[in-house]
Amino acid sequence: MAPTTSTNKTQPKILRILRLRVTDKPGFLGKVATLLGDLDANIGDIHIHSQGPDFIVRDISLQLDDEKHLQRVQDAIAHVDGVDVEMIIDPVQQVHQGGKIEMRSRIELSSLAELRRIYTPGVAQICKLIAKDRNFSKEYTSISNTVAVVTNGTAILGLGNIGPVAGMPVMEGKSVLFSELVGISAVPILIESTDSDYIIEAVKAIAPTFGAIHLEDIAAPECFDIEERLQNALSIPVLHDDQHATAIVVLGALLTITQRMGIDLGSCNIGIIGLGAAGAGIAQLLQSFGANKIFGTDLKQAAMDRLASRGGYPVDLQTVMKESEVVVATTGVPGLIKPEMVRAGQVILALSNPDPEIDPDLAIACGAKFAADGRTINNALSFPGLFKGALMSGAPRFTDAMKIAAAHAIAGQTKMDNLVPSILDREVHKVVADAVALAARTGEPA
Amino acid sequence: MAPTTSTNKTQPKILRILRLRVTDKPGFLGKVATLLGDLDANIGDIHIHSQGPDFIVRDISLQLDDEKHLQRVQDAIAHVDGVDVEMIIDPVQQVHQGGKIEMRSRIELSSLAELRRIYTPGVAQICKLIAKDRNFSKEYTSISNTVAVVTNGTAILGLGNIGPVAGMPVMEGKSVLFSELVGISAVPILIESTDSDYIIEAVKAIAPTFGAIHLEDIAAPECFDIEERLQNALSIPVLHDDQHATAIVVLGALLTITQRMGIDLGSCNIGIIGLGAAGAGIAQLLQSFGANKIFGTDLKQAAMDRLASRGGYPVDLQTVMKESEVVVATTGVPGLIKPEMVRAGQVILALSNPDPEIDPDLAIACGAKFAADGRTINNALSFPGLFKGALMSGAPRFTDAMKIAAAHAIAGQTKMDNLVPSILDREVHKVVADAVALAARTGEPA
Repeated sequence: MAPTTSTNKTQPKILRILRLRVTDKPGFLGKVATLLGDLDANIGDIHIHSQGPDFIVRDISLQLDDEKHLQRVQDAIAHVDGVDVEMIIDPVQQVHQGGKIEMRSRIELSSLAELRRIYTPGVAQICKLIAKDRNFSKEYTSISNTVAVVTNGTAILGLGNIGPVAGMPVMEGKSVLFSELVGISAVPILIESTDSDYIIEAVKAIAPTFGAIHLEDIAAPECFDIEERLQNALSIPVLHDDQHATAIVVLGALLTITQRMGIDLGSCNIGIIGLGAAGAGIAQLLQSFGANKIFGTDLKQAAMDRLASRGGYPVDLQTVMKESEVVVATTGVPGLIKPEMVRAGQVILALSNPDPEIDPDLAIACGAKFAADGRTINNALSFPGLFKGALMSGAPRFTDAMKIAAAHAIAGQTKMDNLVPSILDREVHKVVADAVALAARTGEPA
Repeated sequence: MAPTTSTNKTQPKILRILRLRVTDKPGFLGKVATLLGDLDANIGDIHIHSQGPDFIVRDISLQLDDEKHLQRVQDAIAHVDGVDVEMIIDPVQQVHQGGKIEMRSRIELSSLAELRRIYTPGVAQICKLIAKDRNFSKEYTSISNTVAVVTNGTAILGLGNIGPVAGMPVMEGKSVLFSELVGISAVPILIESTDSDYIIEAVKAIAPTFGAIHLEDIAAPECFDIEERLQNALSIPVLHDDQHATAIVVLGALLTITQRMGIDLGSCNIGIIGLGAAGAGIAQLLQSFGANKIFGTDLKQAAMDRLASRGGYPVDLQTVMKESEVVVATTGVPGLIKPEMVRAGQVILALSNPDPEIDPDLAIACGAKFAADGRTINNALSFPGLFKGALMSGAPRFTDAMKIAAAHAIAGQTKMDNLVPSILDREVHKVVADAVALAARTGEPA
């Protein structure tokens, strides 16, 4: 396999839809498109919004560098005869209007007969059945297909501690992915506290409502404690997404890379740079998978101690780079890996977004055999199938076997020349779910 | 207006769908229908399920007295040539299969561009907006249209303390009604505890997720305390359905009845028999509405004391019946009101289901001017619009003005000769919501 890098570099950009009233004569759209091109505005879809006697209103999707760039576009269009800006729409705001999710009835309520079946008096029959044998709740309620997506908002994306309400759009995004990719009913739960005990007690109190608990964007080190204590207290699976979901995708990608390179991941030394939630999860999963040695480094001594307690080797950055055939970095520090640190033939995943620890092209130029950044390593590849498989099998917790099975399934679904499969491929999530369910039942990765 | 009673008496019955393989020749369906009629089986819909070379499989909906009745029907059909029972389906179980609700995406996830808008990186823009000004959460998340339907399962329907998991089908039923009738996203929350402090703390902890809290089927007297303390602790509306939603429908029905009778409800003495959650709520709302005197009776002294503390008159059953022009009974005790207690010209709502405190026909025969039982007094007429109005107006709590506005709206939507409007009439719920929102803004019932 040839060394591969991701070349489609992007700066953070803004998306806008320009709603333009354009004179309905040949040439006017061309004039606009040419002008936009001259101004380096990247044109996406163009839709006709409405039509008048002698004009057409068109929605033109643009990718722009920033607000100033947008202003330049507006100014330029203001000088074009026969073209007016009617409105500028932010498609991200538009799609968030009113929220992205809603609890919906699976039954259309169109007759009193139906009402009497789903509400009083008919519903009493189902209540009595469950009161007699709680297991019937799995068949006749939504509980066993419902996941709580719990956050306290202390580590929302790369934005840090912005609180759970500001984090709600991310929780709703998770819920959209659960719903659309694997048909799980996922309910955001926002808890405004940084006290682990308080969060644990709140989740325990409402746990009978759910088939599993998905902890999301909770800061390290509290996330480790919260996950472990909750899992020990509950008989349903609990997972801190940031630790494990990314780790599964990384393992899947490493299986693909090493297989293509003809080397055995299990005999490699692995170096983990940054031992926060994601790094610690990656270290732990690779340890369970059976890598040779796990080297790791972090600025925080507690994170180093945690690695050691789990059988890894806490060392400095130089040693990680020197000793490891495979390096995974999740530090959030752009450019942390210097060219001179790169070891010939190394595999480097520099995962920090939007700017990686080392540019993949540079890493290759310095002798790495393979390098990639984090844009395609998306935890949405693993968590939907992981939870679906757990719910399908009725597993009481997520085991390493289930996580490793998910990673193998992801690797198996990866198409030639890709690092990972497409998130939108529903078949991938189905295969992951089936593999996880099988591993839950047998205790072995498929 | 002529004295009205409800005449369509029903015993608790069971619904079944008989899937029959019937010879495809003229006369066979007639034979089956005649047989079912002879056996007193009430036939509903008949659908063709599938068809073979010389037979038709038909699903025949039946209302039967009980399991023995079903057995008699099966035995009789077994003796009919050319007709076989393929399957007996319980339509109530069928509609509950897999649960009645699910959290769904409001956006179809069909492209990576859409994924980038609803999840990383696009979502960060919305998170930052809310982090800067929390009010944006009302516009860009589902929070302000989401209601928690909270129960500890201590008073599920007439079934008593069967626990929250066995009560889940009722919570899902509420959620279906919220979704289908007013487009509210309602999330069941099950808390396995009878400790008020524990329940209050749990709900407070997760409250940032919701626009309002709907307490459901929590037993008296804890329900009073839980509702009051939660409302005082939170800045979003909290309502114990069992207390207030039924009360609103009762007030609406009484407005209709007294208007038709040409008497002024505000100058009537009201008697409340049974001061549990529903009775206490009715007493309180009629007090706020401005009835003359509220007499009430209950076996529990604490309930009597609560009535007195709110300005009502705790007395014995005889006195309630003697002093009141309007009597509302919610005791769960069939036949509690004896014929000799009925006062001439009285209005009697004997609301206990399925068997009322006095048969409406008997009450009329004893001199009552109007009598009805509880079958049409369904709280689903009020709670969807009440919550929708509160959410629309951003009200921090439910006021008496909002509840009275809802009752007036229900009365205003009631058609000639009906006691209350149809639950399935979406327009009714819209009118209630608008009236409640207006009352929330102005402090006055519309």
